[in-house]
Amino acid sequence: MKLASLKQGGRDGTLIVVSRDLTRAVRASDIATTLQAALENWDDTAPRLNALSEVLNAEGDWPQHFNAGEKPFDLDIAALAAPLPRAYEFVDGSAYLPHVERVRRARNAEVPASFYVDPLMYQATSAGFLGPHDPVLVTSEDYGIDLEAEVLVITDDVPMAVTPEQAASHIQLIGLLNDVSLRNLIPNELAKGFGFVQSKPRSALSPVFVTPDELGAAWLDSKVHLPLLSHINGVWFGAPEAGNDMQFSFAELVAHVAKTRPLGAGTIVGSGTIANQDTSLGASCLAEKRTLEVLDGGKPTTPFLKFGDCVRIEMLDRDGASIFGAIEQCVTQYNPAK
Amino acid sequence: MKLASLKQGGRDGTLIVVSRDLTRAVRASDIATTLQAALENWDDTAPRLNALSEVLNAEGDWPQHFNAGEKPFDLDIAALAAPLPRAYEFVDGSAYLPHVERVRRARNAEVPASFYVDPLMYQATSAGFLGPHDPVLVTSEDYGIDLEAEVLVITDDVPMAVTPEQAASHIQLIGLLNDVSLRNLIPNELAKGFGFVQSKPRSALSPVFVTPDELGAAWLDSKVHLPLLSHINGVWFGAPEAGNDMQFSFAELVAHVAKTRPLGAGTIVGSGTIANQDTSLGASCLAEKRTLEVLDGGKPTTPFLKFGDCVRIEMLDRDGASIFGAIEQCVTQYNPAK
Repeated sequence: MKLASLKQGGRDGTLIVVSRDLTRAVRASDIATTLQAALENWDDTAPRLNALSEVLNAEGDWPQHFNAGEKPFDLDIAALAAPLPRAYEFVDGSAYLPHVERVRRARNAEVPASFYVDPLMYQATSAGFLGPHDPVLVTSEDYGIDLEAEVLVITDDVPMAVTPEQAASHIQLIGLLNDVSLRNLIPNELAKGFGFVQSKPRSALSPVFVTPDELGAAWLDSKVHLPLLSHINGVWFGAPEAGNDMQFSFAELVAHVAKTRPLGAGTIVGSGTIANQDTSLGASCLAEKRTLEVLDGGKPTTPFLKFGDCVRIEMLDRDGASIFGAIEQCVTQYNPAK
Repeated sequence: MKLASLKQGGRDGTLIVVSRDLTRAVRASDIATTLQAALENWDDTAPRLNALSEVLNAEGDWPQHFNAGEKPFDLDIAALAAPLPRAYEFVDGSAYLPHVERVRRARNAEVPASFYVDPLMYQATSAGFLGPHDPVLVTSEDYGIDLEAEVLVITDDVPMAVTPEQAASHIQLIGLLNDVSLRNLIPNELAKGFGFVQSKPRSALSPVFVTPDELGAAWLDSKVHLPLLSHINGVWFGAPEAGNDMQFSFAELVAHVAKTRPLGAGTIVGSGTIANQDTSLGASCLAEKRTLEVLDGGKPTTPFLKFGDCVRIEMLDRDGASIFGAIEQCVTQYNPAK
């Protein structure tokens, strides 16, 4: 099934079940009013949401007296909130080592051997996620505004110190992420040694999250085996294969985070920007492209995003149909109140 | 007023107003069922919670037909949840530079000049906070278990890019924190460059949060001017002055975090472990004490916490009365499910 949230009903939005073709939706008010609430009681809500999804996707008339009277409506993707408009935890990985290897090579540094066995992850802000068509508000272009197209998973409650095998069974939903990054704030922040705060502002989530079964054979060994397609201002930017070169599966990433603490229902775990050894497939962030330019010609030639620039991130199935809907965002100047 | 949460009513607990002397409490169900909900509508709820607090703290009979029939009861601090059992954002600072200076000196490194003008902060897990008397569950003593006694503030909604002056008006509550740290996991994690994930598990919060007015003159320039008292296994460990040597006020820390994103109501901002230039006042974490031992005799002699060890963290007003109640926790071995 596919789930999303309307910008209605409060800070957590209103949960809806969305048809497989992303054209229709129905409120799930009788089951759970928000996706967060559904995830907190997933054993009970998932089968009921699935039943609703099956009726929504079936041909034929909508059954009378079904779903507490809630009926399907045409879906306006542009009006959606993030499926989880906010969450209690977002931990992002950097699981595609070709990206790490290139960035290091560009500054004549080695990738530590440990990076191939110990996931690189960071605690990210989860207090608010942009809706799929919300503007990316930034105060200054000088911050070096970049996209990062990623895949993410959402867990139910995960006990502390689970194994990767145990962690796999706690992955309940899959989605996409634009992990907005402010590149020119990163060097100073990382030099301080405690990770990102200012340089990783709010991210955007895909219009819908889907259960792993929606991916069919493309969900294998806790990885998504499909290309992640990005455009900038309508121009193809990249479509690296999310299933290739992912050093750690989502199950391994979840287990890594849960080593010393339990994870609450609704925890979001990101893959990191998708990057392949095969650079002909393009990139998922401008930093990657600029690094290749440095390795190639000594200096970056592609600028970061400017006000008015727009990005589009989506994943198509093998038949060319959009799985999660597209993240489509434009960068907009933010003027602080005086 | 003083606010706390019962371990009742769901994952966010049940909001109660607590008497100034911490002996009695009353549910605020008519105003807000959870502290998170109260903070999301603070302009409306704060005056009403204050009115309830005034009646609770007054001598005399409880007014009939008041507060939707909810009546005061004796408070059992040991049974409390964290005031915010979970939150959408927790960003911790490292605002006491004597700690940073000593740690660096012990490894013959300098403190960068920027540290005196640019706050060192990190994104921390907010998905779950331990109640004030909950055990600290850790899988292995080899992780190097440490306390960190800190002061924290809670904000309402903070717009992006506020000034420190604007940020000050968004600080609505103050509390204490035991920022549990797993010291032996830190070097490897920080060496990877993206900050803490495994080495900073769940923290514990003080029994109550209080509004700034409860501190009277001790709340000045967005700092708390009182000692923070820690005991380990009943032995005095330290009482450094939280108002001294705090390089950045809470208003400055909040503004730092909000530079590139708004903060949601219920955001928690921590001070970092309290440390003074005057080492006779003791420490707020074992790492600090061990660093002093290294500077003094070449090697640390105080061990980290073992299973069964207990810590107590509290802050007394100038009359010796506990302001927030005490965090009292023992370290307990956690055995993962097979």
